[in-house]
Amino acid sequence: MKVPKPILRLIESFERLPGIGPKTAQRLTFHLLHFPQEDLQRFADSLVGLKTGTKLCSICKNVSETDICSVCSDSKRDERQIIVVSNPLDVFAIEKTNFSGVYHVLHGTIDPLNHVGPEELFIKELKQRLEDLFTQSSKPVEIILGTNTSLEGESTAMYISRLLRDLGYNEDKVVITRIARGLPVGGDIEYADDITLKRALEGRANY
Amino acid sequence: MKVPKPILRLIESFERLPGIGPKTAQRLTFHLLHFPQEDLQRFADSLVGLKTGTKLCSICKNVSETDICSVCSDSKRDERQIIVVSNPLDVFAIEKTNFSGVYHVLHGTIDPLNHVGPEELFIKELKQRLEDLFTQSSKPVEIILGTNTSLEGESTAMYISRLLRDLGYNEDKVVITRIARGLPVGGDIEYADDITLKRALEGRANY
Repeated sequence: MKVPKPILRLIESFERLPGIGPKTAQRLTFHLLHFPQEDLQRFADSLVGLKTGTKLCSICKNVSETDICSVCSDSKRDERQIIVVSNPLDVFAIEKTNFSGVYHVLHGTIDPLNHVGPEELFIKELKQRLEDLFTQSSKPVEIILGTNTSLEGESTAMYISRLLRDLGYNEDKVVITRIARGLPVGGDIEYADDITLKRALEGRANY
Repeated sequence: MKVPKPILRLIESFERLPGIGPKTAQRLTFHLLHFPQEDLQRFADSLVGLKTGTKLCSICKNVSETDICSVCSDSKRDERQIIVVSNPLDVFAIEKTNFSGVYHVLHGTIDPLNHVGPEELFIKELKQRLEDLFTQSSKPVEIILGTNTSLEGESTAMYISRLLRDLGYNEDKVVITRIARGLPVGGDIEYADDITLKRALEGRANY
């Protein structure tokens, strides 16, 4: 028995998404068979419109509807406190903390095993952005390295930190910080892994 | 900070799918931002084409590209052995077992809590199908009740079984069987739940 081609095609489309295996792709496709055609059309339109309706902010490279995103164009935000993150989802997470600085979205992490080098990320745009900031004013800039605490995230943070120092930005000009690594709030010391616990001790603060 | 509308729209579309929560919908949407526009277009086309390119087989109600599906139009299959299943995915699963009969797809199970009664399912089409078969020949027909072994599946099986007997199809005309309930192959008696084990004992066969 042959599976109808329109069904196979949609199953294949779903399978290309991360975390969706053949079984889930099948289940989603057969579920969609019960949707009215207009809902399928709306879903399709939102897929096509995803990239045509958005662009990358020319300053921070976050996804935006306008040339300059709502964060970068907000005069109440501190444009000299820049948190460097790997992707737009990180921006949404950090926005919930009432962070008052601005962002720089790299769109990835350095990951040699998957052929992602520094050139594939928006790192030279970060260099350019710092140059522009210092032509406007000589006040110091803080770069918060807000990449993941995974191996790739740490290497990316380290790469950027070294690059900025190599470019001659000393601590008086560019303060480089890294988000704290420690126990998550509500966490149990008993169950913490040793690397996290080691970092939590190293990062201890006055109380 | 506002999330761009095209992104929100796609997140909402994904959230309507079963088993996809807000976090997964976000992750899928941002992953798709890295897709080339032509791949998004292909995905969109397959969504729109899902229902326009398929129809329900006029005999067994399975999803098909043609008016009569490839199973029902196959003369090598026994049209007098009909397995009644809840949805097209069940057909694909059973096809892997080299089943040589044909199908009848109900497109659901009786589920009063979710307002699905017998009228919402293709049950009257099954009645009609039996009538048609008996006008062609008076040879007996086997109806295998192949609904899930869940509460809803069992009620649906019981409903159909009673309905056929009430219609006057006695055991000489319509043999009604139910797929076996027992230990899955490779299963441990030690870990089987009591209802399954009870069914496995009741369904024991000569060896």
